[in-house]
Amino acid sequence: MKYASFLAEGQELYGVATEDGMIALTADFPQWPTLFNVVAAGGLDDLAVAAKDRPVSHREFEYAMVLPKARRILCVGVNFPDRNAEYKDGTELPKYMSLFPRFSSGFTGHNQPLIRPPESAALDYEGEVAIVIGKRGRRISQADAYDHISALTICNEGTIRDWVRHAKFNVTQGKNWDKSAALGPWLVPFTDPAQLDDARLITRVNGEVRQNDVLARMIHPIRRQIEYISTFMTLEPGDIIVTGTPTGAGARFDPPRFLVPGDVVEVEVTGIGTLRNTVQDEVQ
Amino acid sequence: MKYASFLAEGQELYGVATEDGMIALTADFPQWPTLFNVVAAGGLDDLAVAAKDRPVSHREFEYAMVLPKARRILCVGVNFPDRNAEYKDGTELPKYMSLFPRFSSGFTGHNQPLIRPPESAALDYEGEVAIVIGKRGRRISQADAYDHISALTICNEGTIRDWVRHAKFNVTQGKNWDKSAALGPWLVPFTDPAQLDDARLITRVNGEVRQNDVLARMIHPIRRQIEYISTFMTLEPGDIIVTGTPTGAGARFDPPRFLVPGDVVEVEVTGIGTLRNTVQDEVQ
Repeated sequence: MKYASFLAEGQELYGVATEDGMIALTADFPQWPTLFNVVAAGGLDDLAVAAKDRPVSHREFEYAMVLPKARRILCVGVNFPDRNAEYKDGTELPKYMSLFPRFSSGFTGHNQPLIRPPESAALDYEGEVAIVIGKRGRRISQADAYDHISALTICNEGTIRDWVRHAKFNVTQGKNWDKSAALGPWLVPFTDPAQLDDARLITRVNGEVRQNDVLARMIHPIRRQIEYISTFMTLEPGDIIVTGTPTGAGARFDPPRFLVPGDVVEVEVTGIGTLRNTVQDEVQ
Repeated sequence: MKYASFLAEGQELYGVATEDGMIALTADFPQWPTLFNVVAAGGLDDLAVAAKDRPVSHREFEYAMVLPKARRILCVGVNFPDRNAEYKDGTELPKYMSLFPRFSSGFTGHNQPLIRPPESAALDYEGEVAIVIGKRGRRISQADAYDHISALTICNEGTIRDWVRHAKFNVTQGKNWDKSAALGPWLVPFTDPAQLDDARLITRVNGEVRQNDVLARMIHPIRRQIEYISTFMTLEPGDIIVTGTPTGAGARFDPPRFLVPGDVVEVEVTGIGTLRNTVQDEVQ
């Protein structure tokens, strides 16, 4: 089952994605205006029931950010061994993970353009797996962590690289440009630990492989992420954790290989699918 | 006019705060479940009209976080000259401001306890002025910046100090503990530049002055904050910017003077009022 948010006939809708098109379900659930509200209310299974034996409603549509207006998106930084080494600061593997929030306004959907602003030529890609919390919890143990995941999706955690280092602390301003990142194409229910433990992530730019690694190599595995984050804040259904990117972002090449208009970036993850985005200069 | 969120008779309400108590207005505006929704819809003036000649409805109540479930809260770090010097790293005044998001889950209301978790004895205070955006905008000029402010409030930007430096980058995990900070007591409409330009902020712990400075001494003034932040993201009504704290947080004493249960912290700002909070150990 694949749950998606999409635009059709001037409306923002959600439903189930099939090979032939979308089965819109928004009208069935007036209490949930967006797919984020569905997840926050624990309603994915209701969508599955409603979609049963229903015909495709939309063959013409555009994908939207998969969880519109998601309330909390936390990203894990520097989470693969080679990425830590990329910083060339001689530090050992970090004891604690680096975390930074991104606002939902920074994300677009599958097949939509990532926006390169006039202030910077350093738009960069970062392919990642994103988990969606389905069950409330505080101080969740690693053993219980996977029980709190409702669904998986893919993130291109697009970054305006020169603005990441504007300030003494924090990467906020390089990570929150309007529509500089993407989340989608859809949500896949999380039902089996192997969906994460055995998954591989591959990022391609114009068909060339730039990132290629397995989630099992994370410095801070996803079970640990849930344990650590839930130590300081109660995780709620609908919260999103973007779990970290492998080595190979454009910034790490010499010279850097940043994205330019016309580029096509694909992030493929075993069992979820492929998030594809183009790149476009901002129209002011 | 003072707009507040409060708890009474088991309900979360909002309305106008008077010397005699609250004038509840929630029932007048079913389209706006919280004061955040009011601000996001530009409805503060409607509240003022509705409150005219209305009697106090609640004399028994508790204050709540003034903008419940606010969508985006951005905090400015290290924004007074002496605070930059406190870091003793020999750096010049920073060209760009440090920014970090806080989730609304980290905030409680006026007269409520800040929660010290069992994981840390380093709960610290930071008195700050918070501005609330009332008008959408991208790439807002400094000249126009104040036109985008709807209201002012006060923040005790409570911090779990040892967790701020857990990671190589970002202060996220020290700044987002559940109910470790406070926002309130109320919103005051912003109608005159002098409300910010001539304001003084004083933080007291158990009556002892710990922070005492004027907003005019900010390294990155509020007009510049709005200009800079709106460069990378479209500011929306209801967005909150917490504008930076003066020198004198507990961490900067030798030895540090962190908050302990029973402490009373007051943050007073000219023309807005005094945000008062107690400190309490978390009950698990």
